[in-house]
Amino acid sequence: MRILYLLDLVGVAVFAISGTLAAGRAGLDLLGVLVIAAVTAIGGGTLRDLLLDRHPIFWVRDPRYLYVIGTTALLTVACARWGSLPYHDVLLVADALGLALFALTGAELAEEAEHPAVIVVLTGTMTGVAGGVVRDVLTAQVPLILRGDIYASAAIVGIALYLMLHRLGVPRAFAFAAGFLTVAGLRLASVTWGLQLPTFELRG
Amino acid sequence: MRILYLLDLVGVAVFAISGTLAAGRAGLDLLGVLVIAAVTAIGGGTLRDLLLDRHPIFWVRDPRYLYVIGTTALLTVACARWGSLPYHDVLLVADALGLALFALTGAELAEEAEHPAVIVVLTGTMTGVAGGVVRDVLTAQVPLILRGDIYASAAIVGIALYLMLHRLGVPRAFAFAAGFLTVAGLRLASVTWGLQLPTFELRG
Amino acid sequence: MRILYLLDLVGVAVFAISGTLAAGRAGLDLLGVLVIAAVTAIGGGTLRDLLLDRHPIFWVRDPRYLYVIGTTALLTVACARWGSLPYHDVLLVADALGLALFALTGAELAEEAEHPAVIVVLTGTMTGVAGGVVRDVLTAQVPLILRGDIYASAAIVGIALYLMLHRLGVPRAFAFAAGFLTVAGLRLASVTWGLQLPTFELRG
Repeated sequence: MRILYLLDLVGVAVFAISGTLAAGRAGLDLLGVLVIAAVTAIGGGTLRDLLLDRHPIFWVRDPRYLYVIGTTALLTVACARWGSLPYHDVLLVADALGLALFALTGAELAEEAEHPAVIVVLTGTMTGVAGGVVRDVLTAQVPLILRGDIYASAAIVGIALYLMLHRLGVPRAFAFAAGFLTVAGLRLASVTWGLQLPTFELRG
Repeated sequence: MRILYLLDLVGVAVFAISGTLAAGRAGLDLLGVLVIAAVTAIGGGTLRDLLLDRHPIFWVRDPRYLYVIGTTALLTVACARWGSLPYHDVLLVADALGLALFALTGAELAEEAEHPAVIVVLTGTMTGVAGGVVRDVLTAQVPLILRGDIYASAAIVGIALYLMLHRLGVPRAFAFAAGFLTVAGLRLASVTWGLQLPTFELRG
Repeated sequence: MRILYLLDLVGVAVFAISGTLAAGRAGLDLLGVLVIAAVTAIGGGTLRDLLLDRHPIFWVRDPRYLYVIGTTALLTVACARWGSLPYHDVLLVADALGLALFALTGAELAEEAEHPAVIVVLTGTMTGVAGGVVRDVLTAQVPLILRGDIYASAAIVGIALYLMLHRLGVPRAFAFAAGFLTVAGLRLASVTWGLQLPTFELRG
């Protein structure tokens, strides 16, 4: 079983958690929650497969993704109902992990198709970001991508590091891990300590 | 002429009505109304064809869809101007019928391609929901999918019923009709009497 | 080098300017600005390629587009920082030029694939409009398409003129130029003098 496949499953699961929590905030019913969780979880990978013309799309080819999403969403609902889930923190952590996983798997697939570095970076970033954007649009939130801290930037930096290490001869698994930790770490550090890259601000 | 084709035409027409009315609320000019009507009407089917890799996309293959949309939109404008169209009710009914038609035709196409049940349900649901989401995003409304009553859930229940009946040996046309009536009925019942499935609510 | 290719590069550049300015208003960091600029600039063409099943997608086939976007975005940031860029005007002009360029190139590609006129018009309009819609959704603005003046209508009128002239035997380059000037001119005239087509307004 390819490791990328496992990581895709994990990415799908963490984005399903974040979609479930966002749908819960919007007060949807249980089946509606499942749909938002699914669309959030498969948004990034679906965009990746459409852009790179990989058919059938990952979840059409393999329904296991959808079972993972359904199970994860139901467990999340149960935890939120009967446990004391710190809603906001879990959403941010799940979103950061999903961003990191999809950014790196998106980049790796683009790299395998032998695209140049700039396309690998953009494809990976869009793959990582799309699920969260879909979730935010469908639940009528300001996209998380805009809330003033490091988001897409974390994906770019992490993917660039992965590409650099891999081209310098570092084995793929290590480069992948370094990239993943960079994306998730930057994102969480930004949320926790208010870290920011220099911003570009315009008064209109 | 395949019956699915006719139903697709009807689905496109009712979503064109709902898109026209929403564009009218936003105060667009007449050509802008045509674009919003068209995008609302073809949104769900376009997503379905992209996801299932069916090319050319239905309205690219057959421009009759676009003529239907144009005619419907202009008739709607005329009715709204010179008649006394109960705006809100017509929008909700047109949306419910479009949801039901696209959910079922999306499901049937996925079933014909021999995908497993869970993919049939998700594809059908996304096909039914996408047109309305595009309409709501483009006219800057909170997506109808979020307004607290049964929406995506109606699609899921109806498609599941259709699949079950069909696998139990009920002829396709009957199963389709039962599914269609379930989706449209659940949706309209929810709007009319405030029916709701149990919701999942989180305080953040 | 085909002229359409050059025009695509220019369209990508002007939408990159508009994406950069919109991202600047939202206060993103520099890498985030690059992502919004890129997604705005490639949104229309990507939709066009997906709808017409043209793979690989233009920017996947040719990374030069992305270099153009990066360079343009950085120059825009520099101008905005150290010059006195009249933000609002530049955004509107860049958006009008991008709308016109993508509408016409989208239409021309659909025409080359021998689609009927109504599909050429719709594909061109969606190509022209999509980049700006993505920009506005990602930066949480009301879509420019909705702000009460001529937008999608300009694209429709210009594309229709192009098609008519071309079928009447006018050489493609002239027809293209006439269409382009019509779209950009209508759009800018609408913004400057508040020109409007008759609107369709509903009280709900």
